[in-house]
This record gives sequence, structure tokens and C-alpha cells, in this order.
Amino acid sequence: MRIAVVAPSSRFSEDDAARVTGIAARLHPEVELFFHPQCFLSHNHFAGTDAERIAALVEVANDPGFGAIWFARGGYGACRVAEEALALFGPAARDKAWLGYSDAGFLLAGLYKAGFPDLAHGPMPADVTRDGGDAAVARALAWLTKRHADALEAHLALGDAHAAFNLTVFSHLVGTALEPDLTGHVLLLEDVSEHMYRIDRSFFHVTGQRSVRKIAGIRLGRVSNVPPNDPEFGEDEVQIAHLWCRKAGIAFLGPADIGHDSANKVVPFGRF
Amino acid sequence: MRIAVVAPSSRFSEDDAARVTGIAARLHPEVELFFHPQCFLSHNHFAGTDAERIAALVEVANDPGFGAIWFARGGYGACRVAEEALALFGPAARDKAWLGYSDAGFLLAGLYKAGFPDLAHGPMPADVTRDGGDAAVARALAWLTKRHADALEAHLALGDAHAAFNLTVFSHLVGTALEPDLTGHVLLLEDVSEHMYRIDRSFFHVTGQRSVRKIAGIRLGRVSNVPPNDPEFGEDEVQIAHLWCRKAGIAFLGPADIGHDSANKVVPFGRF
Repeated sequence: MRIAVVAPSSRFSEDDAARVTGIAARLHPEVELFFHPQCFLSHNHFAGTDAERIAALVEVANDPGFGAIWFARGGYGACRVAEEALALFGPAARDKAWLGYSDAGFLLAGLYKAGFPDLAHGPMPADVTRDGGDAAVARALAWLTKRHADALEAHLALGDAHAAFNLTVFSHLVGTALEPDLTGHVLLLEDVSEHMYRIDRSFFHVTGQRSVRKIAGIRLGRVSNVPPNDPEFGEDEVQIAHLWCRKAGIAFLGPADIGHDSANKVVPFGRF
Repeated sequence: MRIAVVAPSSRFSEDDAARVTGIAARLHPEVELFFHPQCFLSHNHFAGTDAERIAALVEVANDPGFGAIWFARGGYGACRVAEEALALFGPAARDKAWLGYSDAGFLLAGLYKAGFPDLAHGPMPADVTRDGGDAAVARALAWLTKRHADALEAHLALGDAHAAFNLTVFSHLVGTALEPDLTGHVLLLEDVSEHMYRIDRSFFHVTGQRSVRKIAGIRLGRVSNVPPNDPEFGEDEVQIAHLWCRKAGIAFLGPADIGHDSANKVVPFGRF
């Protein structure tokens, strides 16, 4: 199986790519991992200009030789390229598996809206730099190559439809051309490096959308690396999720084993 | 004229209230400025619990003895109380002038949606703590008491409809029950203390809304106190506004003299 790695958001590093290639070679010698050179470009905040990121994404998406596209990392920038890139995807793009999370959620959202059948929220090559990051990379490869059940988020129920996003990313894509119809879906949300008042405000925004009020419920993943709130916010993310779900008439379904960490499990979009 | 000050977001201080009262007494001895004691309450991030903030807001809104409601300051919290408070407003609330900005934009939005005729984006009592803050307070009072033309943002055109918001606040209220219909309006946006990548992401979100694509155009106020971007974002707020307006087919109309500073001018909502 050939897997292409591209970076629609921030820049990736050659050293980290080498580490991921090493893990893949050891665990999955049958896999050919192709880091598109675009991953290592640098333009301002991004892994190359918008045009360079679009070109790389379209190139690997439309190449029938790749069985999967794996987003290298998050950061920021996918929303600047998603619509243009998607418009250039041909039939070969639809036949692939797609995997990533965080800022890559902008693309997963647009792909899901476009009816792509094989999308998942889960670890990326950049997770190799985390504590225990090898396990995250191994989990992603186990999913992409063998659909290994151990990679899956444990609360997912057969027959239910699911989607997973970074809360802040999801908050910024509702109402745009990238927002998929999540009617009846269990929505798993996680976040990182946001003040607790921002988590609260994002929950207000997300649960206040008419579209989101049609989901089956919300599960809350980890909200990590929260900067100190001044003054103390006084409510944690679970209380916040409860409050806004109650106000919005959305079922709060409990925790989700996803987050910006090496334990981040895989959530396939849709039913599985 | 009696003006009531309430704090639907973060806590205000007695010392700052005394300074504002002093300015009002000197410049407008005819004004009676009433700082509702709720301004000085403290509950976690907020000027009192949600219930206390709602009660104070409803009390002054429904009191026919007040000619204006002036929001004490921003911070965070208005989105937690806006819908409930608005539902309890009677006819006396509609007869008043309302003034504030920043987080108070959540309330201005909901009030404008509800058809309140006398709303403005402009300085608040908390601006007294800024460099030159006395002038901001004086400008707000000149607007509330005499509709002084010098208080107005200079680009506003007679006959045009306007609305002004903090970009991040506006980004978090689109699609919710608080979003007003801004079809045909000139939308003035400003922001503060947001990384440039967040400004970019908010512009993606805001200009990506079908509702926002019906406005007459965007004017950009000051984007101040921007934390360092890592790496350098490489585009400034004007380039960002141009980019997203172009992609969205929204007219970019140039600068606006609003911002989180003492020069912040008054923008009445609607036509004036």
C-alpha cells in the first residue's frame, strides 16, 4: 500500500518524516510512505504558499497509485486551500482513505460534505514528536493498512454515524461551504491550547447552530494545555459541555478518547 | 437624563466607576449615571453569576426611568445571558439608547435582531483606564446625551445602514439565535489581542457565511495588541481582509476608525 503525506497547514520537518518512515518500515514493511516534498516547504505560517499546498494536495489526491492520504500535521492553513483543492479532485480522490485531525478538520469536513466514504479523525505523522508518539503513529498505520479495531475510539457504536473535530476548528467551519450535514451523528470534540473562556464561547457558538442541533449528541474528548484563565474560569470543560448541551437541547453523551496527545484514537466519519 | 450602567460580561471596579462618574459630573451635570451594584459583583470570570447578570440587565432595561443603558466593559460573558435576558425585556427596553462594544456585541446583535432602534457600537466606562481614556468616556456621553456628530465614525454615510462588531465576537455569533440580518449593511470590524492566524481564520469563517455575503461591504478597524505569530504570519490584517473579501465576493471598503483604544468612534446600528 502506498500512502502519501501532504501538509495543507503548517510545515513539517525532514527529521520527523525520517522517524515516521522508520516506524513504518519496521511495523509495516509492505507500506510505501511518500512524503511529498511540499511538506517541507516554508512560506510564512504555512508549508508553502496556498498555491503550492493546493497543487500538492490535488496531485496526490488524483494519483490512483496512492491508497491513502495522511495529513502531516495541523497548525493552521487548511481552510485557505480546502475549497479550491476539493474542486480539483477527480474520481481517484474518492477511492482513498484520508486521515488527520486538528486543522486538517477543515479538509475532512469538506470531504465528508462531498460524500467521500473513507475519512477518519486520528493521529498524524507530527504526533511522532509527542511523549509516546510512536504508538500514535503505529495506531494510524494500523488503521490505514489493516483497519485494526484496536485503533478505534472505544465508545463508537456499530450502526451509529460519527464525526470528530477540534472544537475551535469546527466552530470556524460551521456555516461555511465546508460544513457537512451531521444530522443524526454523534459528534466528538476535543481541543488544545485554548483558554477556558474560549472553550465556553466556542460551545456557545457550536451548540447555537441550527444545523448542530440536529446531531444525535456530543462526546467530549480531552481539552488539554489550557492556558491560565484570569480570573479563574471556575467551570471545567465537562461542566461547560453539559451547560451548553442542556441549553441547546443536545444530548451530552460523555467522554471521548480523542485529543492532542499520543492516546488519540481513530474516529471514522459516518457509519462503520 | 438617567443612564444605567450594567456589566453583562466581566467585572467592573468601583474606582473606575468613580472616575467615570467624575467625568460625567464635570461635562454633563444634567446626567445621572447609575452604576448598578451588579457591576461590582464577582463570580468566576464574570460580574456575578449568569442569573445575577440577567436580573440586573432586565431590571434596568425595563425601568422607564432610564434613557440609556451603557455596558460597563467587555471581557467575556454576554453570550451566556443574552438570549434569556432579551426574552424578558418589555416595551421600555426598546425606547432606550444602548451603547457598548467588544463582548457586548453579543447583546447588540440580539437587540438589533429584535428590532431595537437605538443601538450603537462605541466606548464604554472601562475605557477610562486607557491612555486618553477620558476622551473616550466623554465621546460616549456626548453621543448618549446630545447625539454629538463629532462622536461618529467619520466614514459613515448618511442613508447607508451600518453595524460594527469585534471580529472574534461576530465570528462566534453568526449562525446563532443572536445573529441579526445585515443584508445591505456596511459591516465595521475590529479586533484585539488575537494572533494574526486567528484573525485570518475568523475572516475565513465570517466571510464564508451565506448571510454575511449579503452585506454591502466590510470596513476594517484597528487590529491591535497582536501577539507574536510563530512563525511570522507574513500578511497583515489589511491583506487578510482583502484576501477573504475577494474570495467571498464582498466589497472591501477601506479603514474604520474603531478599535480597542481611546480613539474608538461611535457607530450607530442601522441607518441614521
